[in-house]
Amino acid sequence: MQIEKYKIDEHNQSMLKEHRRRFDFIAAGVSDAEAILKKLIDFQVAIPSWALGTGGTRFGRFSGGGEPRSLEEKIEDVGLLHALNRSSGAISLHIPWDIPGNPAAIKALAAQFGLRFDAMNSNTFQDQPGQQYTYKYGSLQNVKKEVRRQAIDHNIEVINYGKQLGSDSLTVWLSDGSCFPGQLNFRQAFQHTLEGLQEIYAALPGNWKMFVEYKAFEPNFYSMTVGDWGQSLLYASKLGPKAYTLVDLGHHLPNANIEQIVALLLMEGKLGGFHFNDSKYGDDDLTVGSIKPYQLFLIFNELVEGMDARGMDHARDLGWMIDASHNVKDPLEDLLQSVEAIMLTYAQALLIDRKKLVATQLANDAVAAQEILQNTFRTDTRALVAEARLRAGAALDPLALYRNERVREHLVKERGAGTVATGL
Amino acid sequence: MQIEKYKIDEHNQSMLKEHRRRFDFIAAGVSDAEAILKKLIDFQVAIPSWALGTGGTRFGRFSGGGEPRSLEEKIEDVGLLHALNRSSGAISLHIPWDIPGNPAAIKALAAQFGLRFDAMNSNTFQDQPGQQYTYKYGSLQNVKKEVRRQAIDHNIEVINYGKQLGSDSLTVWLSDGSCFPGQLNFRQAFQHTLEGLQEIYAALPGNWKMFVEYKAFEPNFYSMTVGDWGQSLLYASKLGPKAYTLVDLGHHLPNANIEQIVALLLMEGKLGGFHFNDSKYGDDDLTVGSIKPYQLFLIFNELVEGMDARGMDHARDLGWMIDASHNVKDPLEDLLQSVEAIMLTYAQALLIDRKKLVATQLANDAVAAQEILQNTFRTDTRALVAEARLRAGAALDPLALYRNERVREHLVKERGAGTVATGL
Amino acid sequence: MQIEKYKIDEHNQSMLKEHRRRFDFIAAGVSDAEAILKKLIDFQVAIPSWALGTGGTRFGRFSGGGEPRSLEEKIEDVGLLHALNRSSGAISLHIPWDIPGNPAAIKALAAQFGLRFDAMNSNTFQDQPGQQYTYKYGSLQNVKKEVRRQAIDHNIEVINYGKQLGSDSLTVWLSDGSCFPGQLNFRQAFQHTLEGLQEIYAALPGNWKMFVEYKAFEPNFYSMTVGDWGQSLLYASKLGPKAYTLVDLGHHLPNANIEQIVALLLMEGKLGGFHFNDSKYGDDDLTVGSIKPYQLFLIFNELVEGMDARGMDHARDLGWMIDASHNVKDPLEDLLQSVEAIMLTYAQALLIDRKKLVATQLANDAVAAQEILQNTFRTDTRALVAEARLRAGAALDPLALYRNERVREHLVKERGAGTVATGL
Amino acid sequence: MQIEKYKIDEHNQSMLKEHRRRFDFIAAGVSDAEAILKKLIDFQVAIPSWALGTGGTRFGRFSGGGEPRSLEEKIEDVGLLHALNRSSGAISLHIPWDIPGNPAAIKALAAQFGLRFDAMNSNTFQDQPGQQYTYKYGSLQNVKKEVRRQAIDHNIEVINYGKQLGSDSLTVWLSDGSCFPGQLNFRQAFQHTLEGLQEIYAALPGNWKMFVEYKAFEPNFYSMTVGDWGQSLLYASKLGPKAYTLVDLGHHLPNANIEQIVALLLMEGKLGGFHFNDSKYGDDDLTVGSIKPYQLFLIFNELVEGMDARGMDHARDLGWMIDASHNVKDPLEDLLQSVEAIMLTYAQALLIDRKKLVATQLANDAVAAQEILQNTFRTDTRALVAEARLRAGAALDPLALYRNERVREHLVKERGAGTVATGL
Repeated sequence: MQIEKYKIDEHNQSMLKEHRRRFDFIAAGVSDAEAILKKLIDFQVAIPSWALGTGGTRFGRFSGGGEPRSLEEKIEDVGLLHALNRSSGAISLHIPWDIPGNPAAIKALAAQFGLRFDAMNSNTFQDQPGQQYTYKYGSLQNVKKEVRRQAIDHNIEVINYGKQLGSDSLTVWLSDGSCFPGQLNFRQAFQHTLEGLQEIYAALPGNWKMFVEYKAFEPNFYSMTVGDWGQSLLYASKLGPKAYTLVDLGHHLPNANIEQIVALLLMEGKLGGFHFNDSKYGDDDLTVGSIKPYQLFLIFNELVEGMDARGMDHARDLGWMIDASHNVKDPLEDLLQSVEAIMLTYAQALLIDRKKLVATQLANDAVAAQEILQNTFRTDTRALVAEARLRAGAALDPLALYRNERVREHLVKERGAGTVATGL
Repeated sequence: MQIEKYKIDEHNQSMLKEHRRRFDFIAAGVSDAEAILKKLIDFQVAIPSWALGTGGTRFGRFSGGGEPRSLEEKIEDVGLLHALNRSSGAISLHIPWDIPGNPAAIKALAAQFGLRFDAMNSNTFQDQPGQQYTYKYGSLQNVKKEVRRQAIDHNIEVINYGKQLGSDSLTVWLSDGSCFPGQLNFRQAFQHTLEGLQEIYAALPGNWKMFVEYKAFEPNFYSMTVGDWGQSLLYASKLGPKAYTLVDLGHHLPNANIEQIVALLLMEGKLGGFHFNDSKYGDDDLTVGSIKPYQLFLIFNELVEGMDARGMDHARDLGWMIDASHNVKDPLEDLLQSVEAIMLTYAQALLIDRKKLVATQLANDAVAAQEILQNTFRTDTRALVAEARLRAGAALDPLALYRNERVREHLVKERGAGTVATGL
Repeated sequence: MQIEKYKIDEHNQSMLKEHRRRFDFIAAGVSDAEAILKKLIDFQVAIPSWALGTGGTRFGRFSGGGEPRSLEEKIEDVGLLHALNRSSGAISLHIPWDIPGNPAAIKALAAQFGLRFDAMNSNTFQDQPGQQYTYKYGSLQNVKKEVRRQAIDHNIEVINYGKQLGSDSLTVWLSDGSCFPGQLNFRQAFQHTLEGLQEIYAALPGNWKMFVEYKAFEPNFYSMTVGDWGQSLLYASKLGPKAYTLVDLGHHLPNANIEQIVALLLMEGKLGGFHFNDSKYGDDDLTVGSIKPYQLFLIFNELVEGMDARGMDHARDLGWMIDASHNVKDPLEDLLQSVEAIMLTYAQALLIDRKKLVATQLANDAVAAQEILQNTFRTDTRALVAEARLRAGAALDPLALYRNERVREHLVKERGAGTVATGL
Repeated sequence: MQIEKYKIDEHNQSMLKEHRRRFDFIAAGVSDAEAILKKLIDFQVAIPSWALGTGGTRFGRFSGGGEPRSLEEKIEDVGLLHALNRSSGAISLHIPWDIPGNPAAIKALAAQFGLRFDAMNSNTFQDQPGQQYTYKYGSLQNVKKEVRRQAIDHNIEVINYGKQLGSDSLTVWLSDGSCFPGQLNFRQAFQHTLEGLQEIYAALPGNWKMFVEYKAFEPNFYSMTVGDWGQSLLYASKLGPKAYTLVDLGHHLPNANIEQIVALLLMEGKLGGFHFNDSKYGDDDLTVGSIKPYQLFLIFNELVEGMDARGMDHARDLGWMIDASHNVKDPLEDLLQSVEAIMLTYAQALLIDRKKLVATQLANDAVAAQEILQNTFRTDTRALVAEARLRAGAALDPLALYRNERVREHLVKERGAGTVATGL
């Protein structure tokens, strides 16, 4: 299923007048609207292949039908999203769920949709059929050399798939850890993991990056061997210049100040990328911005400030990816909402008057600093982002068009009501 | 120090053109702007007398100067806020910090500023000079009858002060609890507390309400005898129809869903009032809306929905009060920011299309429900609230006027740089 | 597989001398050892049928082999545990995972092992094959009447199975809630749920109890419709005298004071039962006592104190059950460890000198109160519990005997390495 | 007030028979009791001078009387504790609260009591009378150079006092941070702080250590500039080999795995010292071991394992200090309880069969690993620690002797009921 261009044009035409009214209003209050629009058009968020199916919990999964049955269909789904919003121009694959039988063909298919391949993801948190050794007690941390070997080899295999697809980064998320005190020697687990990462690192092509993702808990409930940004940074520092920390918004202890972590990682030149989602309790994997939109804004504030301070390219120098899972929503609708939340927030961060903010900071004027941030956050950037979409050839209201076109209905008809995509 | 009317008019005149542009934009998108403006004008948030001085922590207090030295000066300060925003038409006193020497004169003074007396607050969490028994081990929960007696009598005394001032409610916040396992018999502590509250309840005038405030921790760090909404509701139910639960936004365990608590208390007819502030970790007492503005919106969503369902008067049927403390800001500026955050959020809650929201709920359409809430939250209501202020005779931008008029400078000149107001 | 009596005797004989040394030491320091031993022998903890297989997370499940393939085998497993410790004399079933084809035969089988049927558990958090309506958007809370009807009927069906097996209670755990703000009208969700519970309540036999279990989050990540003890108590109070609150140790927000909740529920006569497990982050379902053993002790302190104050029978007047899940342990070993932790802690709670504790509380002597609790907790009760087991005909060291007899090996041989029991 | 030697002897004599019974029992089960006793005798925990008075919260302070009025009296108090338990042979001073007028005399006085001077503590979280610049907006992080200069100079002054007293370490705890988003540039705050620490570091004598203490929140409630172990390690690594991280048990986000942090810091050679206390919610500063004794055990497990792996001297190579504050207990009693909890737990950690534990870890046998840790934790080490005290010339039951000798009564008589020691 594809959305044809004329459908988008019709949709935009029907909304254009009201859009103009709204855009003119916001544009009149912004000094560098054109520069901001350009940045918004450039900014792309990768879609993870596993987010295209309904996400489940250990208590069950309630599929909504029409889920992609193959890598090809996953690419089609992302292509559809990208056609709608022109901000989802990349896909992040997961091995072994998305092994490309014919990499060249897959690459060509993606290119047709304007998609590139973002970070590759390995999986050593589950046992696959036919796998020789179990990851029940961890992978890279494992006390058994042969298990570590298997996990290292798997990661190198993932790199190889990525090379063929034109990806240039590997995200290593390890569920390694322990459920009970005493189960693990923390130091040894760290050392084993480091050694494994070093071998994988050595297999990276010259232009690749490795993202070391951390997580506070789940599926291990006593300790995690890459448990927080401090641990991840330690690994990344010991590994070398191609290794970076990856931040997933749902992977922290309660009340963590994530924006400060982001700022410090950028300061150290060690922030690699982002997994966007939202959460209230733990790794809830909810729609981006659905629970704590102001926190998202504060994070983008640090991203823009910190990247600009290092002369980084917003669109290219960090890995941007959604990592959400969703039991009660149509996954594609959820992704549209997530991308929208990211774009609106990025736009707000671009609107912050940084000179004024610095001046308030130098004056220890917390009241004025708050005014600047809050007034920017209170600014309605929907028309700005819509205008960027309009100029990029996307839909003014992607979700509305998705619904009007009854996309899910078509997908169910095409693929069946009982399809279940690979993933959690 | 007062802000004269003509200053406000001048200020408004200078901003009027831009305000019109902004107001016209938002008004064009709202069907019942007039009705909403009326509600905004009616809505008043009480200022607690203890928030007029710099708040401290156990690690220190950094006074900013010009703090009110007497109850009269506190009323002047609130009068000043109310002149600026016409939304702070009430003051909440704390006994013994604010014992009115001449109640009639105090009442008259307040009336001059257009202020009424909101809930009276008792204090049994500190020992006062000359006090016979210590509250070191609690007040109403105390194992010693004479301590409980003293605490009960104090509360009745507070009611009596309130009667003279025209207040009609008593907020009982107890710091009672324990710091160590074994220190307390939980059941007995509850029973003692209930008996004490019953005596105080019996002393309430016919038209009064009693607000039973809960708090999860601090200053007791093992247990609190009114520790959560469940406990507070238990007390309020046993006490009778004049007893209600009071919700303070900073008094919960991490990640609590406060808006659900609010909805259920309204369902039970037992929500009495609110202490607004914001927090990231505990009872941080930060400026309202400065950390989790979306949570504040979701709470107001439930408040409006729940009050409307019971036919309640938004402005009069619940007690609205700020309870913030602020070490790094000018307290008056902080209060202006807090009131502004409340008004903007209340305005957004009024804008929610309830019929549509109900329809999405009946269709189990979580995506559309989220769209409705988020699109409303993304709506910039600043011009709407400013218009309400304009019509009420207040300033379009209270904080800007406060700064332009150099109010703090005047207060410091008048009262001295070393003054410290009573409070925490 | 069964452990024959003579094996237990041999095992005990081999350990007897050292046991005597240890038991004599502890007995010399305890005034009423015999009374305590009697209580320990009486105390039985129900084993949930779903804990007999390896528990998983949404990230995977690592079965260890030899898992029970049928209800009969589950009963055999519990029989085996009970033979080893004589403290696991009950089993708690879950419908539809454990539908008894021939209830009379099942009942007889259980009786052979000395087992009775504890609380029945319904399941409306998953969709079953062939089920007419989905629980994707909740069961009793559902906006659709037909879904609520289906969930009510299911619960009544569960009661009917329970009647045939001699159970006398129903545990209702609802995963109902929402993942996104706006998805649900909280008040309506509560009312629908209450009405459903009322219908189920009406179907309870005269001597039955209904346990309303609460949980703070998971699998819903924004709100839970029975989310905390306050909500559960509200339901239970509205339902009537047969309805009680059930406390699961892993179902709270971070830092909750669970022992105080227990004390207050006992005070209200509304504590119904317990799901024992342990957790560090959320509903981690770890082995009882493996993370916070002192918290477990403080909870048992309140249980013993509160039950004695109401003249309740420790062994019979509350429902005691383990609810753990375990990805990295042999489930049967884990259950042996869990039961052991419960027995040791119960023994400690029985050893508390309550008169002295009350005296310290009346003297506000927090230091002495802490001394009493901590000195009791520091008392090594292992020999006391072992003696109780010895007298009851069980093994001095159940886990050691289990391992010596290579039970798991036998079970794998008998049932296969790839068996996966029903459950999470 | 001092406890004369003969009083201790009489006390010990009266308890000796029962002690023997208990010690013989435990000694019979331990293979290397003598070696353990030696380690217990060697182990000393420093007492902070500010813990000798009643601690308060922002809601009030309830002094118990007899608090030390001078540095000399503080040393006497610690001397008294040390006489009672022979495990409190060091005192940690806080400048400016404890400026020694005559350092030589103070040193001699301490020596009389067998006390040495542990880490010196600076204070840049409060303004002192006569101080030129305010720390309202931070100290080393401050945007104003003159404030940073003042804070640096203060720390160097503290080092100088320490040199005269024979201390060899400086603990830097900074309350620096922010209360509101936007108030601070995180990166700049870090850089300023680093530069300040570098200047202080340069002033350290050759044999000194600097401890960089971290804290998650309070008194700043949005961000802390040394907020977690990751940040502290970053500072310590950039500073050099004399800089270390200091862990305070109450300074973490909810649910943090502190023992893992300890293990990793030891692995990096960057763990410097410990502030012992306990907490349920935040920096509650409760008595050590009063809330989570098993966590304390797991931490000591890592400490012993990690120090042994590096060949470190348990008693000398890390800084051990209590940092508790206590509103409802006699501070000296509280310190006796805290030291006791530390010693009992250290004894347990020494009892762990490390060879067996390693074997279980290499076998991925989580059940057996838990058995080893829990059985050790369940072992009652009270008689072992008492024996160590007996051999060191201290009291078998320090708290009982303290109470029998009515020490507090004497102190109140000597110093007055209204004395308030410096501190929080």
